[in-house]
Amino acid sequence: MNWTTLNDTQKKALLVEERAKFEAYKAKNLSLDMSRGKPCKEQLDLAMGLLDTITSSTDFKRAQDYRNYGILDGITEIKDIFCELLNINRNEIIVAGNASLILMYDTIQRAMQFGVLGNEPWNKQGKIKWLCPIPGYDRHFAITELFGIEMINIPMDENGPDMALIEEYVKDPQVKGIWCVPKYSNPMGIIYSDEVVERFAKLNPAAKDFRIFWDNAYMIHGLYGYEEMKDIFATAKKYNNEDIVYVFGSTSKVSFAGAGVAFISASEKNIASLKKLMTIQQIGPDKVMQYAHALYFKDKSGLLAQMDKHAEILRPKFEKVLEILDRELAPTGIAKWNNPRGGYFVSCFLPEGTAKRTVALAKEAGVIFTGAGATYPYKNDPADSNLRIAPSLPPLEELEMAMEIFCCAAKIAYLEK
Amino acid sequence: MNWTTLNDTQKKALLVEERAKFEAYKAKNLSLDMSRGKPCKEQLDLAMGLLDTITSSTDFKRAQDYRNYGILDGITEIKDIFCELLNINRNEIIVAGNASLILMYDTIQRAMQFGVLGNEPWNKQGKIKWLCPIPGYDRHFAITELFGIEMINIPMDENGPDMALIEEYVKDPQVKGIWCVPKYSNPMGIIYSDEVVERFAKLNPAAKDFRIFWDNAYMIHGLYGYEEMKDIFATAKKYNNEDIVYVFGSTSKVSFAGAGVAFISASEKNIASLKKLMTIQQIGPDKVMQYAHALYFKDKSGLLAQMDKHAEILRPKFEKVLEILDRELAPTGIAKWNNPRGGYFVSCFLPEGTAKRTVALAKEAGVIFTGAGATYPYKNDPADSNLRIAPSLPPLEELEMAMEIFCCAAKIAYLEK
Repeated sequence: MNWTTLNDTQKKALLVEERAKFEAYKAKNLSLDMSRGKPCKEQLDLAMGLLDTITSSTDFKRAQDYRNYGILDGITEIKDIFCELLNINRNEIIVAGNASLILMYDTIQRAMQFGVLGNEPWNKQGKIKWLCPIPGYDRHFAITELFGIEMINIPMDENGPDMALIEEYVKDPQVKGIWCVPKYSNPMGIIYSDEVVERFAKLNPAAKDFRIFWDNAYMIHGLYGYEEMKDIFATAKKYNNEDIVYVFGSTSKVSFAGAGVAFISASEKNIASLKKLMTIQQIGPDKVMQYAHALYFKDKSGLLAQMDKHAEILRPKFEKVLEILDRELAPTGIAKWNNPRGGYFVSCFLPEGTAKRTVALAKEAGVIFTGAGATYPYKNDPADSNLRIAPSLPPLEELEMAMEIFCCAAKIAYLEK
Repeated sequence: MNWTTLNDTQKKALLVEERAKFEAYKAKNLSLDMSRGKPCKEQLDLAMGLLDTITSSTDFKRAQDYRNYGILDGITEIKDIFCELLNINRNEIIVAGNASLILMYDTIQRAMQFGVLGNEPWNKQGKIKWLCPIPGYDRHFAITELFGIEMINIPMDENGPDMALIEEYVKDPQVKGIWCVPKYSNPMGIIYSDEVVERFAKLNPAAKDFRIFWDNAYMIHGLYGYEEMKDIFATAKKYNNEDIVYVFGSTSKVSFAGAGVAFISASEKNIASLKKLMTIQQIGPDKVMQYAHALYFKDKSGLLAQMDKHAEILRPKFEKVLEILDRELAPTGIAKWNNPRGGYFVSCFLPEGTAKRTVALAKEAGVIFTGAGATYPYKNDPADSNLRIAPSLPPLEELEMAMEIFCCAAKIAYLEK
């Protein structure tokens, strides 16, 4: 039955029905967390062999002892794996730390304090603005918000962000950057189309210190095998525009979420400039952990083989989420969602003005979802409609229960209005 | 023979003699590096057992899976070791990253951008000034220089920095901080006296956002066993002044220089404020490496036992440096140096105006020393006198050769003048 054309009497009857279901869920006294895109234990178990690659017998008697200070931009062995994956050279990457989030934050902080490639520090350029494809990644928005950067919403469709709008906005020299999760985007799960990538690659902003923050978090995180997508860096090079983009990534969802290795990749000029500042902040990354990763994964095909194993675990979870949405919500016609082929999220659009209420109801029944609005700058979803579902962490049976509660909550929120 | 009262003829004769020695050294075609305080391979080998503590069999099925995201301020097990060492509680410490240098840099960057405990950001307070006990650590000075903070030299004696001068300078509200290496100071090797610590603990600067950066890099790095020193944080608490100090440290020279764990310790108020900003930059540190450290060292006595092994390796090297200085330079009366009981350096004061020339001569003979001036803000040693000798890295026989060349170079530089 399609619910979009119900009369009040029908609504009331359905509400009684759904509330009865809801009370039954509540009586189960559940405590489930669906809020974050965290790998589950079985996924973390996949990389346990990495912990055996480095032992007390490992030979560190090499020219550069990886146990000692130094090597600011990461060891050659780990660089080479990412260079193969990204099709870049060793001067176009820094491998450092355990999280790309830190690299993104630090890159913005450096731009604020010291400027980009010799330009005036953003701190001294008045009101700085930033483009934010929506819905997007809450931690991205939290960074730009902390720095007092004005965030501008950019709508997305199945091909990526609205490029015409972006091309218009970047005529303003105060617009200094954009957050992008180009592949299996967080939370929409879409892959930017070739045309979108091409238009990004040749973007010509008024601000010479404008940068695309290309957070390729899910580059190899397909649920149905590795899919190629157009390479922004290579394309930008063709337009002599390679300084415009910083590419970020990590093995947080390849090896261990808390103990992976992260990288920033960019033009040689950008990398050299970042290293000049980085060398004051740090002597070198944890090279022992980098070496363990290099020994374990060996090369690009080693990474991809690992991701196939992750997909085996994740695919049934994503399919379960979609199955329940299809079963419970599709017939009502009140919601829509994506069918991601990778990444960590299913993004669900509920009827306007019901997302917050849905999260509150689910919480009442013991299931925590990501807060409504989290996927928007300033946590403000103007339509109060989008919710992010993270299928990875809970076991399949919990996920099923959580999603049934989600659908029941969404229905009640709709019927109450 | 005392060289301070030589006439020109005597000087010329000695110069001929020393130059002949120098040519003989040059003929050896050496290539030795004495420039950095890096642990040697034998020291790094001491902690290899740490790499066996975490394997594919390690049980991570705990409430908080250390392989996953989270735990911004570090795992309890590693916190507890530092809490015992520092005599603090778990809310007074953040364990994060592999280097205290990053924590220091980031703490200053946060103060610049966001301010300290609700005060105006330093970026918005006009010209910021900083107190720098001299000679000091070059990487400290590089940070404050990068941020355009005006550095003020504070002379040191065997008790620590000139406290009367500091108490005078902090009446200026533009003075926001001071670099301190309180134990086996870099490079002087002195331990701040109880009185100096007491005066720091009750310091009452005009700027409420003034902070002491207490870089306790060598807290447990005694060459002759662990020595207690007065606890600045506990003392500051007695004066209700505990917000004034940030204490830094790491296991860089306990486990691995490139793969240790680092901490910042401060008042609960300071820590809470730092965490509020940190949580935007990062989700959590590498907890696998933290757990490995915790399993390996277990507690304070585990750390101290490890440091005894380091001392076994380092002590003969320090004693060799001092032996050669005593033999070659002491009789001449032209130089003085410290006799450190810990830390990583011997600090040598040569005749005024000869430090640069000494380094250049040593380089000519194939031995790299830390650049003259490196131990001063802006790399400017007004007397061109201080040189930092780092005995840890080279094998004993190379160290002996390097030090003989050092003394020969210092003599030539003096005689040439």
